[in-house]
Amino acid sequence: MSILVVGSVAYDDITSPSGSVQNILGGAATYFSLAASYFTQVRVVAVVGDDFGPEQERVFHRHSIDTRGIERANGKTFRWGGTYAGNLNEAKTDFTDLNVFEAFHPQIPKEYNDTEFLFLANIQPTLQANVRREMKQVRLTGCDTMNYWINRTPKELAETLKLVDVLLINDTEAKMLAGETNLPRAANKVLAMGPRALVIKHGEYGATIFFREDAFGAGGRPFRAPALPLEEVTDPTGAGDSFAGGFMGYLASQKELNREVLKRALFYGSVMGSFAVERFGTERLQGLTRAEVDARFQVFRELTHLE
Amino acid sequence: MSILVVGSVAYDDITSPSGSVQNILGGAATYFSLAASYFTQVRVVAVVGDDFGPEQERVFHRHSIDTRGIERANGKTFRWGGTYAGNLNEAKTDFTDLNVFEAFHPQIPKEYNDTEFLFLANIQPTLQANVRREMKQVRLTGCDTMNYWINRTPKELAETLKLVDVLLINDTEAKMLAGETNLPRAANKVLAMGPRALVIKHGEYGATIFFREDAFGAGGRPFRAPALPLEEVTDPTGAGDSFAGGFMGYLASQKELNREVLKRALFYGSVMGSFAVERFGTERLQGLTRAEVDARFQVFRELTHLE
Repeated sequence: MSILVVGSVAYDDITSPSGSVQNILGGAATYFSLAASYFTQVRVVAVVGDDFGPEQERVFHRHSIDTRGIERANGKTFRWGGTYAGNLNEAKTDFTDLNVFEAFHPQIPKEYNDTEFLFLANIQPTLQANVRREMKQVRLTGCDTMNYWINRTPKELAETLKLVDVLLINDTEAKMLAGETNLPRAANKVLAMGPRALVIKHGEYGATIFFREDAFGAGGRPFRAPALPLEEVTDPTGAGDSFAGGFMGYLASQKELNREVLKRALFYGSVMGSFAVERFGTERLQGLTRAEVDARFQVFRELTHLE
Repeated sequence: MSILVVGSVAYDDITSPSGSVQNILGGAATYFSLAASYFTQVRVVAVVGDDFGPEQERVFHRHSIDTRGIERANGKTFRWGGTYAGNLNEAKTDFTDLNVFEAFHPQIPKEYNDTEFLFLANIQPTLQANVRREMKQVRLTGCDTMNYWINRTPKELAETLKLVDVLLINDTEAKMLAGETNLPRAANKVLAMGPRALVIKHGEYGATIFFREDAFGAGGRPFRAPALPLEEVTDPTGAGDSFAGGFMGYLASQKELNREVLKRALFYGSVMGSFAVERFGTERLQGLTRAEVDARFQVFRELTHLE
């Protein structure tokens, strides 16, 4: 099965305690599609500028990622600069130049119409909703969002949430969206807004998936996947999008979508997030093999598995 | 097998969003021994004042806890008052009246000399070390400490750490003790100070046990137990001591101490911590059955178990 991701492609300048890099390929759709490519065929809808060339395109093509949905616009590609200090949990944004991304209106190529899995990366909620409505054959939609949209466009976001199956956000975003400090209570409130399942990412502590009572045969019982305790975190950029890529990519590779499959997907999300942060940008995600992915899956399983 | 705990018995005044209680039985040794009593025979060394009567003693005796080591001193029992607000993660201390606890010098009754498992709750490190040296037949020693001792008595604490097998502390304490912000690197530094295993408690995210390469046949591979996502937290007081009671109590009930047993102990610790916070003080820990404990163990197992 194939999966379509709609989101940003960007150039990033990143500084962390491990060093500095400039003009490296980034953006949510890039991290997502590379991570998902280890599981399934990936299609991308995004916008780039004149400065996006064959070298960048080859990164996608080496992973058999379909780039026909990457629109070329006049101007520069989205650029972001950020600095991580101390415990690496949060980036200080040095600059955000939206450039061609500012006027991004996702255009879905006709050839993508039969896509059955859809991931709406973090863009304006109404754009997310429009894409979802256009894709008539989608079986499962995943969605990301952020504090900015939760605060600025709550009505639009509420409309989008009615259209998605799985929302993937972090603790802070879940509590803010629900207006509730207790995590399971926040989860129940978010599930009442539309999604059948909610993945809450806890950073270095892993992630929990909460289910609606009637969804995926899960009987509303949550499930938690750990994160690997990592001694070396080089660059946390894209960890959440890589998580989403592993999670959604694995789902798109499966025939049935039941609780057991969603549990494994949560582990694969955690696995891909853990790879992403080992090197700057997408370097680690570009050079993996499926065998390495599955070996780390076993390490994660052993980390919480009782005989 | 029996286990000896050395620590505080106290009266607490607690306020949380769920209400207020005064003069309820508390203290690290109380929470620990009640939690451990579901697994093994418990002995207590502590000090109380004139205000500790038969009613309080019956709480211990109903759980077959041996109180011959609870010394009666002239004066009042240790009193603590605290308030929890918002997300319940941290108490604001309203008052600390050490009273008879200020001059606490643990006296081990002769009848306790054959104890094979020892838990040194959070008291001055030199007192902890003295108890450990006195107990000649101990097979495994667990130990707690806190920021106060890490900052004020680092040398004394370093001596104590050489004598203990398992240290149980939280993320902040581990990072402070190691002078290191990365958790697995902090764990390695703490293990180099003496303990063969280190349990780091992550609050609502569970706990991770790190092992020295040569310890418990674990090959240095860490293990993580989840915490139950709880919708209702009434009173977090004693959660860490209850965790330690479940962890150490389960170990004391086992013949062999290998990685698999320590993994299960970590789950039982998480289970007892989750019960403790459901009601004020020790109320929930007083009224459990072993069947309820094992039922929640299965819930926790299912929370992270892949088929």
